[in-house]
Amino acid sequence: MNTISIDSVSRFDDDADVIILGYGIAGACAGLEARRAGGDVLVVERAGGASGASMLSSGIFYLGGGTDVQAAAGFDDDPDNMYRSMIASMGPEQAELVRTYCDGNVAHFEWLEEQGVPFERSYHPDKAVFLMSTEGLMWSGNEKVWPYRDIARPVPRGHQVAMEGDASGAGAMQALLARCAEEGVRASFDSVAEALIVDEAGRVCGVSARQFGKAKLFKARRGIIVATGGFGRNTEMLTHHFPALPASAEPMGIPHTDGAGILMAVAAGGDVRGMDGLIATASIYPPGQLVKGIIVNRLGRRFVSEDSYHGRTASFIMEQPAQRAYLIVDSEIFAYPEIASAQHRLIDGFDSIVEMEAALELPPGSLVRAMEAYNEHAREGRDPLFEKHGDWLKPLDAGPWAAFDISFDRSIYYYITLGGLRIGPDAHVLDAEGNPVPGLWAAGACTAHLSPDGKSYASGMSLGPGSYFGRIAGRSAMGSS
Amino acid sequence: MNTISIDSVSRFDDDADVIILGYGIAGACAGLEARRAGGDVLVVERAGGASGASMLSSGIFYLGGGTDVQAAAGFDDDPDNMYRSMIASMGPEQAELVRTYCDGNVAHFEWLEEQGVPFERSYHPDKAVFLMSTEGLMWSGNEKVWPYRDIARPVPRGHQVAMEGDASGAGAMQALLARCAEEGVRASFDSVAEALIVDEAGRVCGVSARQFGKAKLFKARRGIIVATGGFGRNTEMLTHHFPALPASAEPMGIPHTDGAGILMAVAAGGDVRGMDGLIATASIYPPGQLVKGIIVNRLGRRFVSEDSYHGRTASFIMEQPAQRAYLIVDSEIFAYPEIASAQHRLIDGFDSIVEMEAALELPPGSLVRAMEAYNEHAREGRDPLFEKHGDWLKPLDAGPWAAFDISFDRSIYYYITLGGLRIGPDAHVLDAEGNPVPGLWAAGACTAHLSPDGKSYASGMSLGPGSYFGRIAGRSAMGSS
Repeated sequence: MNTISIDSVSRFDDDADVIILGYGIAGACAGLEARRAGGDVLVVERAGGASGASMLSSGIFYLGGGTDVQAAAGFDDDPDNMYRSMIASMGPEQAELVRTYCDGNVAHFEWLEEQGVPFERSYHPDKAVFLMSTEGLMWSGNEKVWPYRDIARPVPRGHQVAMEGDASGAGAMQALLARCAEEGVRASFDSVAEALIVDEAGRVCGVSARQFGKAKLFKARRGIIVATGGFGRNTEMLTHHFPALPASAEPMGIPHTDGAGILMAVAAGGDVRGMDGLIATASIYPPGQLVKGIIVNRLGRRFVSEDSYHGRTASFIMEQPAQRAYLIVDSEIFAYPEIASAQHRLIDGFDSIVEMEAALELPPGSLVRAMEAYNEHAREGRDPLFEKHGDWLKPLDAGPWAAFDISFDRSIYYYITLGGLRIGPDAHVLDAEGNPVPGLWAAGACTAHLSPDGKSYASGMSLGPGSYFGRIAGRSAMGSS
Repeated sequence: MNTISIDSVSRFDDDADVIILGYGIAGACAGLEARRAGGDVLVVERAGGASGASMLSSGIFYLGGGTDVQAAAGFDDDPDNMYRSMIASMGPEQAELVRTYCDGNVAHFEWLEEQGVPFERSYHPDKAVFLMSTEGLMWSGNEKVWPYRDIARPVPRGHQVAMEGDASGAGAMQALLARCAEEGVRASFDSVAEALIVDEAGRVCGVSARQFGKAKLFKARRGIIVATGGFGRNTEMLTHHFPALPASAEPMGIPHTDGAGILMAVAAGGDVRGMDGLIATASIYPPGQLVKGIIVNRLGRRFVSEDSYHGRTASFIMEQPAQRAYLIVDSEIFAYPEIASAQHRLIDGFDSIVEMEAALELPPGSLVRAMEAYNEHAREGRDPLFEKHGDWLKPLDAGPWAAFDISFDRSIYYYITLGGLRIGPDAHVLDAEGNPVPGLWAAGACTAHLSPDGKSYASGMSLGPGSYFGRIAGRSAMGSS
């Protein structure tokens, strides 16, 4: 992919102060802030209307630092505690962006409410992946998982939009889009952005798009904000960055997330980071009681604390021999995983562990030894291998036993790509030397997520930072802060 | 590379119960244990004598769990504490191997002493990379670095062999090799192993080597133990796994670490893990006072806690834009880095931060802002961005100031490859399905290190686990435990 030189442009079809590519949550938030900073704003969107993957999402924002929703549920969070929690799992690679995010989080939550995004003052205490109901607060990450619970006060940060059903992201998007419409953010729909336009000085100053088969050239007086989402539907990029992804895995979101915005920005000099990062999920919970089971690999060995966030568990399953994994439960905790789309198959019930071990073709004695050790420690209320939380420890000694096949290639794992454009704290796209690419900003899932991998991801880390840095991009492109 | 079928072998030149490839520390320990289990043992070594990279190393073993050296220095460690510390930084990927290692560590230390490896009951409290002197205990990792210091009681675990100079590894090797000679471990020197021999059932049963231009075929009745070291001298493998390694970087160790043992074992069905792991070092300390400076990237931003283990700091430098990094100090802490081989160049002294910022071509205002924030927090005794330990916090306000160029491509970074063969807790080489490759064991730097990357590595994590799993491999290949 290449950029287009302004020399080859004879006339523009339209112009604006700020042009935003993509009308998901990052684009909507960028549009609102750029508009409020006095800009004429045009969103170029390839779909027939605004929405993005955000509209289909479960509507969880990873927010904290002491929001009103947290306080109402009796949780004491603050920006430092949130920062320590995030950095401990994600590492310090993007410390400055994380710091910015944590420090601005309470104000950002209030801003979202002011735009009409509804959050209930209510709390869902159980293990869940998404909520069909409307509670405002849930555990959505690894806060209570060792070692993170020892580093920062564990508090829930999943802020769910108050909307029934599993696509509560619509409740956020509808509110934001209504404001965009009211305040005059313009849009060009059915317009597929194809290349950025660069002026004599190397500054990004426009975009070439295709609408109903015709080329459309848009001029951006102040800058372009890329907000086009991830690359989960780009087969070539997937093959390159995720060679171990089985054919059974399914991208989350919408068909349009083909990485085009990333590639356009790279052509203009933008750098990427963390392209091999992925969050996949085929959660064993709910119900939470399944977390009391153990997960073993083809060697009959445990490899992850079973109370981990589902994306963390999935990341470790991806790394096991042949990506195979089994969930083992006894009769006391037996239940079917509720998220049927994961297609975790019940292999069978067994009267003894020896039988199960043989049926799963595990090395002789391996599962028997693993279970004996686990049960012995569970009776003492501890898990010396993975420090699974005491709430989930019980000896698995109430036969018969059952096994589910939760292997990466035999279940349906849904994934989100986490890598993307490198941005600074002002959402400016950076080049490989770390210098801003003139005229180019980015936010949302086309940028590198704050969490580099599925081991440190938490639900809400797309909508939360996407909306936050979208707002920053809008202000920054307009030259206000 | 291929294996050789036993069908094509008409006669063997020599045979033994156990054949070990490589006579570094893993091979020596494997040889001793296999011999003591009653085996006839032959070591096939390409050099003219035993040594390996171990002989040239600084002689640090990462040991703990409550050794006599730790106790003598007043440190209270135990296997659980050591395990928590290691897993917190390395992740749970190899939990079982780490657990085995920690649980057996005190006994392993005693075994090393029984073989005549000398360790003083003395303690070096300062920041150091290696010791010219003979103290037995030093800080060699990230134990005191946040967040690890909050997860496990920080104690030093670098056990240094009591020998003057920077190559104290010789003090360990000489003792172990003397035992090998006394007890009848045989060796074939100047013998370059080229391919493993596999029998009709697929079991590894021998090795083909080349000695002075002639083929030599060795038969192993019980098994082969690969102990051939890392792949730091294999240009093709380096290019493939470390595309960002600059030409200036230098492999540590000896010229023979070309990954041949890894490739031979892979040809026989062995799996590898963590091949993109690297520990590089060009330490800014000693002297420790330099740790009170700040390290910034091309954006004028800090990106790592400066009190990190030198290999951790180097890992983060590798990831910065253009791999550039600068160490900034004020006149109160100014000193030259003592490890001259790192070639960190003093750029200049400056009367103001504004001048320095311009000379380093950092974005205008970036360094001024970074220093102001750092100094303000240092005065309060805190570092909210990276939680640098209070011992190393002081405002850098005593001008003039100086900058060293510690960029990855402008200094000399020395590295060790960390990836390699996948083994189980019995040191059996595993295939991609996690099943043991019949007849094949491995230990030392040709296996995947316990630490997957330079961020979690600590000095001593090659000699420590190499000697420990070498012993296990020797016993396991003989069928004893």
